[in-house]
Amino acid sequence: MDSADAVIWTPTPSDRDRALAYGDGLFETLRLQPSGAPLWRFHRARLLAGAQRLGLPLMAQRLDQALEQALARCDRPAVLKLILSAGEGGRGYARPASLQPQLWARLHPLQPPAVALREQGVKLGLCSLQLARQPALAGLKHLNRLEQVLARAEVSAAGWDEGVLCDSAGWVVECSAMNLFVRHGEQWWTPSLDQAGVAGVARSWLLEQLGEVAQDPRDLSVFATADEVLVCNSVAGIMPVRTLAGWSWPVGTTTRALQSELEQLFQ
Amino acid sequence: MDSADAVIWTPTPSDRDRALAYGDGLFETLRLQPSGAPLWRFHRARLLAGAQRLGLPLMAQRLDQALEQALARCDRPAVLKLILSAGEGGRGYARPASLQPQLWARLHPLQPPAVALREQGVKLGLCSLQLARQPALAGLKHLNRLEQVLARAEVSAAGWDEGVLCDSAGWVVECSAMNLFVRHGEQWWTPSLDQAGVAGVARSWLLEQLGEVAQDPRDLSVFATADEVLVCNSVAGIMPVRTLAGWSWPVGTTTRALQSELEQLFQ
Repeated sequence: MDSADAVIWTPTPSDRDRALAYGDGLFETLRLQPSGAPLWRFHRARLLAGAQRLGLPLMAQRLDQALEQALARCDRPAVLKLILSAGEGGRGYARPASLQPQLWARLHPLQPPAVALREQGVKLGLCSLQLARQPALAGLKHLNRLEQVLARAEVSAAGWDEGVLCDSAGWVVECSAMNLFVRHGEQWWTPSLDQAGVAGVARSWLLEQLGEVAQDPRDLSVFATADEVLVCNSVAGIMPVRTLAGWSWPVGTTTRALQSELEQLFQ
Repeated sequence: MDSADAVIWTPTPSDRDRALAYGDGLFETLRLQPSGAPLWRFHRARLLAGAQRLGLPLMAQRLDQALEQALARCDRPAVLKLILSAGEGGRGYARPASLQPQLWARLHPLQPPAVALREQGVKLGLCSLQLARQPALAGLKHLNRLEQVLARAEVSAAGWDEGVLCDSAGWVVECSAMNLFVRHGEQWWTPSLDQAGVAGVARSWLLEQLGEVAQDPRDLSVFATADEVLVCNSVAGIMPVRTLAGWSWPVGTTTRALQSELEQLFQ
């Protein structure tokens, strides 16, 4: 891999592509290393399930080929970005009768996450933007991400490490690019994502590790009595949360254990 | 203009473009003819206002140049599609410090609207999809249009001419690609678009023509007592609505008058 980004697979991007015109598609961003992509089964399953929900023809074989070609060019820790679009489709919201989805794949060098954040934890703020509630799209890692762009701008402007987003009903959903887990005593909780939010791959991995995790709708008071809070995504990994608004927490021992368990997959 | 689409202005579409990755941008679709683009001031104003709301640098001069170049190649009725994207921007929701927006412009032949629909009116259905409420994006003609893609699929599957969309609170918003106007006696009403929907250019033109138009939130019962219903967009023009669910209406005389007034701009 060159130090610059490496294009693995690029159909000719067209200004008639439905991803460009309407965000009609999905994406994945996954961490890989020369020996493999430890969380690939989660990414692959999510992309295929998302394609099915959006009515896009499945392309399991092309996904596997893209991963294979990326690994063949990967000589150091990297991030593979996949964009699956509905393909070209004239002018208008109606998809053509015969969809020809396009897959882009690009390998980026892995930006090492700030060690301090992983070790000492992150400082969260509360975004003023509220996520819209749309069950038809909730959970999907689709290409309609203006809300996240706006949220991320709030995070940058305020100087937080990340920002917590509630939906328009006041339920806690996620951070701008990470999922949230909160522990009360022995019980872990993470927001249900049936109205808004992206069902992250690190979240799926954590749900497997933790076993029973509550997922009922909760408002910000969930933080008032929390013993431990963490944020996660599949590229940055797991990070302890130290502060949010007026609340603060020590780095949790479970967080530390999960963090190193996830990192071991990438050794 | 060739019979095929004519590319007026195409920066190299990149798979790192934020329009492709996140739908980070806006678009316009406008009807023009060799003598000009009669509704250009509305399209131009909407695109510039949208850019300002999304924090994209204004490009008024490039818009005007694009129109000029499109008109120079326009020898018959056509549709100009403009896509304004936030430009390239790495991997991640945060925009680069220095945004370099991209503008695409493509000229399409005008598909003549089915004369029967314009003359005899359209049959609407009620989409089961409900639009999410997001005041931060409401009204904008942004590139996050998966809801419209899903709605349009419902319309096609059901065989309606168009589909009415309510938001998740039950308020009537728009059709999948057209705005709605409803008359009760002397009083016209159109949905307010502060929570969802696209503020269409034909809608803006109609608001100027009609003078006082009510815009309070109303649910589907607005149709129960309606005397006249129309749908509009700047490319297809104004069309009388004949039926929706169990309701039906004659072609309204005001609709007919407005319809021919709008068409005269394109003579």
